Amino acid sequence: MKLYVSPGAPSPRRVMMFMVEKSITGIDLVNVDLNAHEHKGEAYRAKSPLATVPALELDDGRVLTETRAICTYLEGLHPEPNLMGVDTEERAFIEMADRRVEHYLLARIANTVRHTHPGLAPLEQPQFPDFGQSQAQKVREIAAWFDHVLERQAYMAGERFTIADITAFCAIEFAKLMKFNPGKEGMPALQAWRDKVAARPSGKIR
Amino acid sequence: MKLYVSPGAPSPRRVMMFMVEKSITGIDLVNVDLNAHEHKGEAYRAKSPLATVPALELDDGRVLTETRAICTYLEGLHPEPNLMGVDTEERAFIEMADRRVEHYLLARIANTVRHTHPGLAPLEQPQFPDFGQSQAQKVREIAAWFDHVLERQAYMAGERFTIADITAFCAIEFAKLMKFNPGKEGMPALQAWRDKVAARPSGKIR
Repeated sequence: MKLYVSPGAPSPRRVMMFMVEKSITGIDLVNVDLNAHEHKGEAYRAKSPLATVPALELDDGRVLTETRAICTYLEGLHPEPNLMGVDTEERAFIEMADRRVEHYLLARIANTVRHTHPGLAPLEQPQFPDFGQSQAQKVREIAAWFDHVLERQAYMAGERFTIADITAFCAIEFAKLMKFNPGKEGMPALQAWRDKVAARPSGKIR
Repeated sequence: MKLYVSPGAPSPRRVMMFMVEKSITGIDLVNVDLNAHEHKGEAYRAKSPLATVPALELDDGRVLTETRAICTYLEGLHPEPNLMGVDTEERAFIEMADRRVEHYLLARIANTVRHTHPGLAPLEQPQFPDFGQSQAQKVREIAAWFDHVLERQAYMAGERFTIADITAFCAIEFAKLMKFNPGKEGMPALQAWRDKVAARPSGKIR
């Protein structure tokens, strides 16, 4: 199998962290140069029609896109350690936590960065800086909520590390581009959780 | 169990369609008045801390939020008819289709409506109409892509009806608020698919 990735982008990083957590080897990484618009070229679109990265090319030639769908597939192939829930009930509650992180934290960080950072202008046209700044405020509000969650529990979905922590860690790391640092914003539980995840082997990949 | 819903809003509609497709009964529906900001009140936030609707209150008092997580839970309780995949591989490919619909169609429709429609001003502050109009253009681009997909296959994820069709149908219905009509936009396959879903019992609920 081949995994198409772009170093520094949060979505491929999520899948790469997921693979490290599961000690998955044997999947070739293929870099896609976003700044050169390689993802919008005909060759890549033949694999990922909406020009999204990451994409997992299976051995039979089919291509799976969408970060979390790729993780679902890999979790099936490599069930241990479990990251997405061992039964229906746990799967649902972890999915809830993962979606809260993805929709209310990561998406708003992405909106902020894509609409305010000059370096992202090639990828987001037109940029709406006022909208981006407004999203930055919402990032700080939701991050404060997650800080309170982490005062009461060790990880995003409860007492064990799951896919929701991967999504959240990649979000917080991406938020460096909007100069967001939980510790300096008065969110010590979020900062401590971030440092704990950063110390894992999966937290060291880029 | 109780399901907290808001008539007319696309996310609770997704869960209600899912329940009709599976003939699930015995879950009490409780209306939450978004226009009166009931979802932001203390009582509702005690159940759904991020003030999101829908929310499924379990018999043991725990509350599950996030549309797709609720569906995952209900799929586990009521496996037939299957809407989210019968094995890992199908689950992953249906999740891919569902996420494509949710992130690139529904989210952009929601951005358009929330940032341009006066009726949504109470729910989206501040509104950024220029951003909303830009998103409307992206809605038309991605809808045209889905139109081409539906020229080649009967449903959003392939040859059978799945959760991705529910997400897409609720998105297209919500897009009436931005005066988007696939047939009038020159997207006959998308219109035919929409009419096919609308004719199902689940397509008739509001």
